Amino acid sequence: MSRFLTHLECSKTGETYDAGTLHNVSEAGYPLFARYDLESIKNSVDKSVFKERNPIMWRYRELLPVNDMKYCISLGEGFTPLRKVDTLGGKLGISNLFIKDESLNPTGSFKARGISAAISAALERGAREFAMPSAGNAAGALAAYAADAGVSAHVFMPKDTPLAFKLECEYYGAEMELIDGLITDCGQIIQKRKEKEGWYEISTLKEPYRLEGKKTMGFELAEQFEWELPDVVIYPTGGGTGLIGMWKAFDEMEKLGWIGSKRPRMVSVQTEGCAPIVKAFNNNMKTAEPWQNASTVVSGLRVPSAIGDFLILEALYESEGTAVAVSDEELIDYSKVMAAHTGIFPAPEGGATLAALMKLKEKQWIKDDEKIVLFNTGSGFKYMEALNRNTKTVNAAKA
Amino acid sequence: MSRFLTHLECSKTGETYDAGTLHNVSEAGYPLFARYDLESIKNSVDKSVFKERNPIMWRYRELLPVNDMKYCISLGEGFTPLRKVDTLGGKLGISNLFIKDESLNPTGSFKARGISAAISAALERGAREFAMPSAGNAAGALAAYAADAGVSAHVFMPKDTPLAFKLECEYYGAEMELIDGLITDCGQIIQKRKEKEGWYEISTLKEPYRLEGKKTMGFELAEQFEWELPDVVIYPTGGGTGLIGMWKAFDEMEKLGWIGSKRPRMVSVQTEGCAPIVKAFNNNMKTAEPWQNASTVVSGLRVPSAIGDFLILEALYESEGTAVAVSDEELIDYSKVMAAHTGIFPAPEGGATLAALMKLKEKQWIKDDEKIVLFNTGSGFKYMEALNRNTKTVNAAKA
Ligand SMILES: Cc1ncc(COP(=O)(O)O)c(C=O)c1O
Ligand SMILES: Cc1ncc(COP(=O)(O)O)c(C=O)c1O
Repeated sequence: MSRFLTHLECSKTGETYDAGTLHNVSEAGYPLFARYDLESIKNSVDKSVFKERNPIMWRYRELLPVNDMKYCISLGEGFTPLRKVDTLGGKLGISNLFIKDESLNPTGSFKARGISAAISAALERGAREFAMPSAGNAAGALAAYAADAGVSAHVFMPKDTPLAFKLECEYYGAEMELIDGLITDCGQIIQKRKEKEGWYEISTLKEPYRLEGKKTMGFELAEQFEWELPDVVIYPTGGGTGLIGMWKAFDEMEKLGWIGSKRPRMVSVQTEGCAPIVKAFNNNMKTAEPWQNASTVVSGLRVPSAIGDFLILEALYESEGTAVAVSDEELIDYSKVMAAHTGIFPAPEGGATLAALMKLKEKQWIKDDEKIVLFNTGSGFKYMEALNRNTKTVNAAKA
Repeated sequence: MSRFLTHLECSKTGETYDAGTLHNVSEAGYPLFARYDLESIKNSVDKSVFKERNPIMWRYRELLPVNDMKYCISLGEGFTPLRKVDTLGGKLGISNLFIKDESLNPTGSFKARGISAAISAALERGAREFAMPSAGNAAGALAAYAADAGVSAHVFMPKDTPLAFKLECEYYGAEMELIDGLITDCGQIIQKRKEKEGWYEISTLKEPYRLEGKKTMGFELAEQFEWELPDVVIYPTGGGTGLIGMWKAFDEMEKLGWIGSKRPRMVSVQTEGCAPIVKAFNNNMKTAEPWQNASTVVSGLRVPSAIGDFLILEALYESEGTAVAVSDEELIDYSKVMAAHTGIFPAPEGGATLAALMKLKEKQWIKDDEKIVLFNTGSGFKYMEALNRNTKTVNAAKA
């Protein structure tokens, strides 16, 4: 483990655990947070060193859970472009619009970050066989990192997951099972089998370190904005790991003296067909009820219940953020708008953030000159089925 | 133009042209090369500055053809990972195997580099409407960069180009025409129409600056290897712009004193169904004959004749390199091998380089401890049709 990593802590009860061995959730059943000796990091690392390091997320290695870098499995993840998208901003009348383009990660999504951290940390702690339920992107990432590490990956996905995800897992040589159900059903199958099979489960927020990988998006926002965070962050929320991770990163950076106390207002975007966090937020709840009959073309947002629901909601409330549901039609339409004025071919999850922005602008929840960051969490190339649906010209006259 | 760019030069006759205005080929009909005042660059730029600059290809801006950076259209292209792939190397018994992973470029291929340079330079020189024939990746890139620039793109592709390329062009809002023919036929249509339509044609090597974007792969190889080039570079060759570009970059860097005289042996990889360069190389020719009935699943390598053929062949001869043809089956098989042991889901063009490596190893043309770089020029996600073909498990039992 990182020489600065001191222990793990239950995100609900505060109970502590040894960070040198493999863990899943806390005894109380909640996600575990990695804790570092921030004082020592403060004394030994100046934030000006990062720009001299490789442009990948491991440039923040003191705040990541690997000590001996020989365990680090890196495919080039992180330090993705934070683009000021003036052509799009101009169309919308928003003068400081940015997109953090996570589609340029290995395997085409931000999931690479979490998996790079988790698999590296788990290898250092002795795991050699991994299992995970996934809506697609995480499975692709696990399969890819396991391939490079030379270890085995068992991935479980809903059987209607888009072809690209299945095909990449096949190519990476993962063991893949396609399930007639949702990601939560996939998770239950792993629960049942993992002990007998000897699998280490790395479901999101059910092991401590995917969160650590995802939090690097928060470090990068700060570094790329010259250590001052933006006003609003709009993020497509399934399990919520990215949002919770960034929130944790902001806290760590403030303690390290890298940033001040200013926080962006955090916005969770979900789809109308599966919006447990939006519903909970609107009812001012601390946790979310499982969503019944979840249905949306956006596979990454079809997460009916998230173990970290209370952490997502906490970040929304504390930041004076909000939660927005958009329809499948809206998000496909806005995926096109994003593509046509930025040159980013977004995952539908990314398109959803633009659809949400339009609603927030309409309501005047955002001001036109605020610094706003949309997260395009993945690449549209993996979602042909969803994105081709409404593309009349390609289907008819031209194809 | 870059304050160091002095003029354009016919790559065949040496005749010079003004670099401040728009050009296509030279009067003699050959590609134009951009020439810089290398002495002045040598006196004003130390190569140690690059590591402090943004990790994109524009970090080498003194050697790129844009002066006023407000014309620079950048989506985050370049400075892709150069990965030492030890798991794969171990399987093959090659101890210094590297992959330059160009799939992490915007729009999922190395074409982004050429287009970023060409469109930026053309905007600075007044062009506002662009046209291009493409096998797919270049069209996607042009459409994307034009979208961000807010200008129009007209792309012409063979009608059997994989869906992903058509869909992205549609999303980016390009004018797309699908042609019943090959990329060369698409080129002829543009030739006929461009004047009347007022299009600026940016076909590869038919304008001077895509080459400049592609040459940055050569700068990066040097920088990432700490200014000493590898022993062998294996590159999938269609139009050959990448190979010619790197060769030009090596020359510029030596003149700048950044590297010595050592050059990698350059290897062109083509497919058995379209191998004009391989045939010409084997017959020790200076130019290549157009390939009849070109046919391969690898759209990017289905280029029956290349305007830069003599430049490709020159680089192969001068570097004591070679040219290798592989079959469609071999390259799909080796795409899988690459994926399964590196976590890279390659474009079939990338898989082809590994298939070629195996042939060169067999023939003992390479030594097992040489530093070898394979270029994965694009992302497999854009080639579902080609890659899904032989993936029996996905087709049958599991999908
Ligand atoms: C592209 C994409 N965006 C967003 C999400 C949701 O991510 P999180 O679990 O961090 O909320 C996913 C999850 O699968 C995804 O694949
Ligand atoms: C993925 C990919 N690799 C290689 C090539 C060939 O590139 P070049 O024209 O530089 O030889 C292409 C061209 O379309 C391509 O798309």
